[in-house]
Amino acid sequence: MIMAYYFENILGTFIVDDKLKLINESKGKKNLSPVPKSQLPSVLQLFKDKQYFSQYYQKNLQLTRQLLKESVSDDQLIVQAIANINELDRVTNILVKRLREWYSLYNPEWEHQIDSHEQFVESVLSNTKKKPGSMGADLKKVHLDEINHLGKEIKGLFALRKKHEDYLQQVMSGYCPNLLELAGTTTGARLIELAKGLKRLALLPSSTIQLLGAEKALFRHLKSGSRSPKYGVIFQHPFIQKAKRENRGKAARMLADKLSLCSRLDYFKGEFKAKEYQKELEERLR
Amino acid sequence: MIMAYYFENILGTFIVDDKLKLINESKGKKNLSPVPKSQLPSVLQLFKDKQYFSQYYQKNLQLTRQLLKESVSDDQLIVQAIANINELDRVTNILVKRLREWYSLYNPEWEHQIDSHEQFVESVLSNTKKKPGSMGADLKKVHLDEINHLGKEIKGLFALRKKHEDYLQQVMSGYCPNLLELAGTTTGARLIELAKGLKRLALLPSSTIQLLGAEKALFRHLKSGSRSPKYGVIFQHPFIQKAKRENRGKAARMLADKLSLCSRLDYFKGEFKAKEYQKELEERLR
Repeated sequence: MIMAYYFENILGTFIVDDKLKLINESKGKKNLSPVPKSQLPSVLQLFKDKQYFSQYYQKNLQLTRQLLKESVSDDQLIVQAIANINELDRVTNILVKRLREWYSLYNPEWEHQIDSHEQFVESVLSNTKKKPGSMGADLKKVHLDEINHLGKEIKGLFALRKKHEDYLQQVMSGYCPNLLELAGTTTGARLIELAKGLKRLALLPSSTIQLLGAEKALFRHLKSGSRSPKYGVIFQHPFIQKAKRENRGKAARMLADKLSLCSRLDYFKGEFKAKEYQKELEERLR
Repeated sequence: MIMAYYFENILGTFIVDDKLKLINESKGKKNLSPVPKSQLPSVLQLFKDKQYFSQYYQKNLQLTRQLLKESVSDDQLIVQAIANINELDRVTNILVKRLREWYSLYNPEWEHQIDSHEQFVESVLSNTKKKPGSMGADLKKVHLDEINHLGKEIKGLFALRKKHEDYLQQVMSGYCPNLLELAGTTTGARLIELAKGLKRLALLPSSTIQLLGAEKALFRHLKSGSRSPKYGVIFQHPFIQKAKRENRGKAARMLADKLSLCSRLDYFKGEFKAKEYQKELEERLR
């Protein structure tokens, strides 16, 4: 039996004999020992052969593609969905404003009676007749139809927003159940978006989590010495909404503290403790 | 027969006898002569009676409501529709950008291959499978569905824009056929929008029509002496697009001239001459 060593790189496993000639049997190491360290430079010389260049290139490309493919995590999907919820809010605002103006040619009385955008769209679509004494013009069907077309599209956009929320809930219940439970769907997703991923959120100090989304106010505070912000997106959380005005800063600190713990539990695959935290917070609020 | 006069105001016709007492028979003038001018002040005294106060108030309100109701003209409907086309352009832009980013997690190769926003949405919805070697992640159906929901809504918005264009064509073909023929649907509607109605458009000098929509550049020119703009929204017109670069200013002046004539014909209910103007312009372009 001849003496032989094996050598591995991204192209596969190569076997060399004791004179460092290649016996290109890349079918396993067969209990051989690796090339001794002192011989490594001479073995690497072998790969300067041109035939390996394009092989290296191809293999590299393939690996990079694979990495790219696998780099898409639930983080990115959550970020896209919550970002689109933000866009939808902006977009429906623009279109409802137009609908209000347009529809008020026909029925100006509703414009101020119905504050909620969503309800306004519903009312326009449900085609309730305007009151007889209305100051609006008696538009023909062709004009009203056009207004209704717009209303229908806006309704579709509101429905899409709801679908996105359900979807977020579904994705987050598997990916970050603790954060979902304590922060709620949109606030939780927004925290992940602002922190650029669950990993970074888990690594942030809780005082930073408290201020995520209040960057503008924070930098204004640092630059011009105005009062420092007390909360960022977590302001939307019912725990802070319920707290008295003078306690809100404290409430925000406590909530951010627990949210930070939640994100850590989620990222490091810990237990489900969000319910306990919630109770604890509620007790302290009293 | 007693001597009597009649007196009219917004409440109706009143008949007074020669001692200026009211015989409140408001059923017509019955060949009576009006109250002599010299007696008018004493007749007006009669209406200081309290019973007329609320009657005046009611009548006034009713008349104002009527005026308001009749003040809605085709102008306003056209302005709303074209304004909504503008909003839709803005809104679809926002949402398609998001769709592109979201979808590229799954199939990043398309992002740069398909430039047209509308075509991109169609491609996403037609569900053509991505190429096998794609660098995108293999997303599960639940994630792809969410992207598709967004795509469907955007498609609806594109369809709404087309509906609005058809609607504008319909309204304008009755209201301003000349302007519609020469300027086209969107440019014509935009001119009406910028001039705040067909009446004002008809009264504007053609040099102003030439620059409608280029106000920013015009005021910059007046303030800082930069080069004056050559055209506003009429830049979109094929007549200017077809002209050579150095002739575009002249072309814009000629076109604005004819557009001004068109709007006057339309406002003062003149003949249909837009086709003639079009021919004239095309001949001069050569």
